[in-house]
Amino acid sequence: MDTMKYQYEYPRPSVTVDCVVFGLDDNEIKTLLIQRKLEPFKGEWALPGGFVLMDEDIDAAALRELREETSLDKVYLEQLYTYGAVERDPRYRVISVAYYALVKLSNHKVKAATDAENVGWFSASDMPKLAFDHNIIYEAALDRLRAKVRYEPIGFELLPKKFTLSELQKLYEIILEKTIDKRNFRKKILSMGIVLETDEIQQDVAHRAARLYQFDEKKYLNLKKQGFNFEI
Amino acid sequence: MDTMKYQYEYPRPSVTVDCVVFGLDDNEIKTLLIQRKLEPFKGEWALPGGFVLMDEDIDAAALRELREETSLDKVYLEQLYTYGAVERDPRYRVISVAYYALVKLSNHKVKAATDAENVGWFSASDMPKLAFDHNIIYEAALDRLRAKVRYEPIGFELLPKKFTLSELQKLYEIILEKTIDKRNFRKKILSMGIVLETDEIQQDVAHRAARLYQFDEKKYLNLKKQGFNFEI
Repeated sequence: MDTMKYQYEYPRPSVTVDCVVFGLDDNEIKTLLIQRKLEPFKGEWALPGGFVLMDEDIDAAALRELREETSLDKVYLEQLYTYGAVERDPRYRVISVAYYALVKLSNHKVKAATDAENVGWFSASDMPKLAFDHNIIYEAALDRLRAKVRYEPIGFELLPKKFTLSELQKLYEIILEKTIDKRNFRKKILSMGIVLETDEIQQDVAHRAARLYQFDEKKYLNLKKQGFNFEI
Repeated sequence: MDTMKYQYEYPRPSVTVDCVVFGLDDNEIKTLLIQRKLEPFKGEWALPGGFVLMDEDIDAAALRELREETSLDKVYLEQLYTYGAVERDPRYRVISVAYYALVKLSNHKVKAATDAENVGWFSASDMPKLAFDHNIIYEAALDRLRAKVRYEPIGFELLPKKFTLSELQKLYEIILEKTIDKRNFRKKILSMGIVLETDEIQQDVAHRAARLYQFDEKKYLNLKKQGFNFEI
């Protein structure tokens, strides 16, 4: 049986995609991992990912692999970095294009399939040693996520349409992993002009109902185009 | 003659690297291009680049291709983005990892070799239609360069060790392509604390000699680690 049916004049590497999906719950950021069903690193935890098919764009490959292995769908993946060290895969030369995303954990049910034996959301404190160079990719994605806060405000997709400033502050605190002074936070976020007061207050809360706010997306996109600094 | 000596079970794409090297002269940013000696796009201008070898890291491949085709050496290339649309190369599937750098044009002599018929520095206003998707890669690199000013001050490698604030301002104006108010610029750059006054002034100038300054690299690295915003 001749299984080597693809022949080339020059040697070629394989190309994979790997996805770092951060899921935000009420108190922390968790990371979506799969347990590998196949060698190499069989039984070990890894980022979801796999080989790019010849007739699909790399972005599409990342979405497909994520969907196949974890059933996670409709995620806005952004390209992170490409990892191309010669020895990063024990089998043969594999160059991997890494992607990352931040989603609201409770909105996404996950289920292992295809090459994944198991799937789970891992806290930073429980992060296992991952297959390949995936710990390095994970750290780079975390750095990028935190740096991104400077040029893109957090929250558009992660909060309900109307939210309290405390909810927004909590989001910043979880992602930046630091406590933020409440007064400074309010002053700064309101002075940007991208968060607007509504005439509504919270409903059905035990404590004093807080004012609800919403994002002004048009204003935000304008500021972003001008290179505005959204840092808190 | 059997030239197809590399055989694989699954099809594999080729992987290339492409380099956007910006050269700063006295008045503008120019871009280093090569004229292709080979098909496809023979005779057309393109970014320097080529195939990644199986035994070299992708970063090393970018440096090697740049050196081979343009004789440009010792450049600090940073990874930009990976381009992987299915049809981006008319021959077969090629995924390209793009890099970029900013150098002082006068420090670098270039000379065409290997797959490059010709080499040259092109002004933005003279940018030709490039081979493959290279115009898209060029635009992305320019955007990245300008965005970078926010989290990394310009100038460390581009100015002499001691420089005037006018020289530094000119650098910002060229890269950001806008005029900057002199008083605001001085106030802002000095308040960051990364540019220090020396006790020297310019020598051999016709006009009134200006004060010389130098970078405080230690202070800068400290601020950078804290996520400081260096925007002017």
